[in-house]
Amino acid sequence: MKQLNSWVNDANSSLLTDLYQLTMLQAYWELGMEQESVFSLFVRRLPENRNYLVAAGLEDVLRYLESICFDQGALELLRALQLFSDDFISWLGAFRFTGDVYAMKEGTPFFENEPVLEVVAPLPQAQLVETFIMNQVHFQTLAATKAARVIYAAQGKTVLDFGLRRMHGTDAGMKAARAFYIAGVGATSNVLAGCEYGIPVAGTMAHSFVQAHDDEMEALRNFTKVHPQTILLVDTYNPLEGVKKVIALAKEMGEGFQVRGIRLDSGDLAQLSVEARTLLDEAGLENIRIFVSGNLDEYSLQDIFRADAPIDGLGVGTRMGVSMDCPTVDFVYKMAAYEGKGRIKTSPGKETYPGQKQVFRQEENGKAVFDILGQWGEEIPGRPLLSLVMEKGRRLAPGDLKQSRAHCTDALSRLPEQVLGNEPAKPGYEVRISPRLEQARRECVRQYAGKLQ
Amino acid sequence: MKQLNSWVNDANSSLLTDLYQLTMLQAYWELGMEQESVFSLFVRRLPENRNYLVAAGLEDVLRYLESICFDQGALELLRALQLFSDDFISWLGAFRFTGDVYAMKEGTPFFENEPVLEVVAPLPQAQLVETFIMNQVHFQTLAATKAARVIYAAQGKTVLDFGLRRMHGTDAGMKAARAFYIAGVGATSNVLAGCEYGIPVAGTMAHSFVQAHDDEMEALRNFTKVHPQTILLVDTYNPLEGVKKVIALAKEMGEGFQVRGIRLDSGDLAQLSVEARTLLDEAGLENIRIFVSGNLDEYSLQDIFRADAPIDGLGVGTRMGVSMDCPTVDFVYKMAAYEGKGRIKTSPGKETYPGQKQVFRQEENGKAVFDILGQWGEEIPGRPLLSLVMEKGRRLAPGDLKQSRAHCTDALSRLPEQVLGNEPAKPGYEVRISPRLEQARRECVRQYAGKLQ
Repeated sequence: MKQLNSWVNDANSSLLTDLYQLTMLQAYWELGMEQESVFSLFVRRLPENRNYLVAAGLEDVLRYLESICFDQGALELLRALQLFSDDFISWLGAFRFTGDVYAMKEGTPFFENEPVLEVVAPLPQAQLVETFIMNQVHFQTLAATKAARVIYAAQGKTVLDFGLRRMHGTDAGMKAARAFYIAGVGATSNVLAGCEYGIPVAGTMAHSFVQAHDDEMEALRNFTKVHPQTILLVDTYNPLEGVKKVIALAKEMGEGFQVRGIRLDSGDLAQLSVEARTLLDEAGLENIRIFVSGNLDEYSLQDIFRADAPIDGLGVGTRMGVSMDCPTVDFVYKMAAYEGKGRIKTSPGKETYPGQKQVFRQEENGKAVFDILGQWGEEIPGRPLLSLVMEKGRRLAPGDLKQSRAHCTDALSRLPEQVLGNEPAKPGYEVRISPRLEQARRECVRQYAGKLQ
Repeated sequence: MKQLNSWVNDANSSLLTDLYQLTMLQAYWELGMEQESVFSLFVRRLPENRNYLVAAGLEDVLRYLESICFDQGALELLRALQLFSDDFISWLGAFRFTGDVYAMKEGTPFFENEPVLEVVAPLPQAQLVETFIMNQVHFQTLAATKAARVIYAAQGKTVLDFGLRRMHGTDAGMKAARAFYIAGVGATSNVLAGCEYGIPVAGTMAHSFVQAHDDEMEALRNFTKVHPQTILLVDTYNPLEGVKKVIALAKEMGEGFQVRGIRLDSGDLAQLSVEARTLLDEAGLENIRIFVSGNLDEYSLQDIFRADAPIDGLGVGTRMGVSMDCPTVDFVYKMAAYEGKGRIKTSPGKETYPGQKQVFRQEENGKAVFDILGQWGEEIPGRPLLSLVMEKGRRLAPGDLKQSRAHCTDALSRLPEQVLGNEPAKPGYEVRISPRLEQARRECVRQYAGKLQ
């Protein structure tokens, strides 16, 4: 870790954890508590404004688990904290993740109590990695879910991610672009995300380009000279006057006019798009597409398309980028077994199910009807959603973003309609507990009751 | 950029930008539009549930501006997009930021229309850096502001940051810890942030440690053996039973008992803390401190302390970490001048003020009473909040996190009480526009009106 800069990198990500993971680690190590444990990552209850969630972030988790270690720089930093014994710090120098991971594919819709990921590993290993796993899966799942809702509301129109500037930091900018793409977003404005993940990039001009000119017409003309097939932003001063200037530019340029579209970024977008479409069509510019942006989300899109606005593409920024109506979900990473024994929490409202689990999705005529949460290895009909993705610390197959995207589209198309829309589904999608799993939970409670007197 | 991984680093951060910044850059370059411009970063209106905002993120902005460049790897990636001319890509290879930056100190409370930062630079430079500047200042300001509100509600009790796991990605985890510290948070659970920024780290044990034992008493005893001066988590099964076990442990260990406190993480924290305090005091354990955590924010803290709960410290996680009640503010980065001429937007509700600006804070008896937004160089009484921090691309002084923290504490103590609390201040803190600035805006509007007919 020669360069300890403001960003997290592969060399220092082992320290991107909560201090208590390390204090517990020292205790587990000193106490010799290194037997196999099972931890489940799941959401206890769906937020009121989410009928489903879309799993994302697994790829970054697996990369982290494959590479996690404490190099000399990390060990020096820990020593300087004066909280840990020298022997423990030496032991950390040899720390590697050697466990198994079972997970849902990225892009899988899931529901309450369903593990999206389970770690089966020696207790210290499974414990240490909690914070990073949560940090990545929580946010990417939020982002993929929000995007899936926006895309559903967009009724087939292209959705573009414009959110980088107001996302929470640089990593959010990258990971959201990735999660959005899994959920079906068509392109991102984030150049680095486009380059890294192979996502199409989109974007043309801002108001400042127009403002830098003394005259709006000259600005549009100038931009078109440099980028002939561009989308022109028309609302710096007055949207419809801007549209008229694009029409004038088309006349001026004649055959050379190749502009692909216009963008409206303020005002009543539904109404303005109708008026702009009329102006453009009357001028014979039927091929010019209309893009809109500005405070868009699944709710405003529902209104826009209820009004049947002639809009071809949508630039969606902040509200999708921070999952504004739901900036967090109650993901937890809970111990489900240790030393072969089921472990649960019994606090009211925080009950958990013991042991390694599987989710079986029940389908009728190609549509999901309910899920069954059962024990791993149980024989239950239906589509099993979790599979072994990492064995003894090595991943079994590389991730493929385009495959995740295709999987997500397919899996969402199998969900009931009332789950996909903006309104809370009542009743929500049902998750049944298998009799064997319920039985195992009761046995756990009984054993605990004996001890808690 | 040999290693293009999932995280943003110094070598590739120039690509962490919106595509349109680069398409505009090519246009500016081809058109020879490289004269000096002024851009202002500000918030048009405060969110309804924020009476002030706390500026943060400047340090990361300056580091970025000092280092931004396109190395060969970055240029290759841009070439592969097939959107830019070869000549332009060659020109990017020599791109550096050579402008001036004026800014408020980190930790400064600010209000609507007040620039926290202004960039004075050749147009292409000032334009390109918009996305990164917004990404960092927006989030760090959100985080510092939320923490300031939580700290005010905590009435002098220590606030600890436990939010890493549910923040939006790794960078948010780092930058929030930093911004929280500026605002006065006492410690963070994020080990890497502690090491990097020199922030105290905090954390002891999780429920899983208790769950991994067959017996809660044995778990507490074991953890205390390894970490004698720890804080013990008591609510895995039943909070008050947990407290009684700590008391039993104290009797068992006698003189050797050095445990510093207990932590309650669920249930009615105010009520439980009273009952726990009583049990501890009756057992002669008056020195044991009580820490609480679980769904805390400025609103729940207000309730807890209205009930006068005997709580010594607060672990605040998700709700502060994602600024849950306000996950975004309407920061904008707008052109204010080009080629020495003021530039504004005139769209209704989006009006801006032209030229470089200064904020003058008016104080009476050590308390801020209102601000005046004026032109840079205007002679107006009051405390000027912006100063030159970077000249010709070189910063004038290194940042100092502890100084920013002290500055924030001081500046917040000067704000009127009604601004600091949870309730919306009516009327809010006043920002007056200087007559000269208002005059300059009107002249701009008049000039534009001539052109917009």
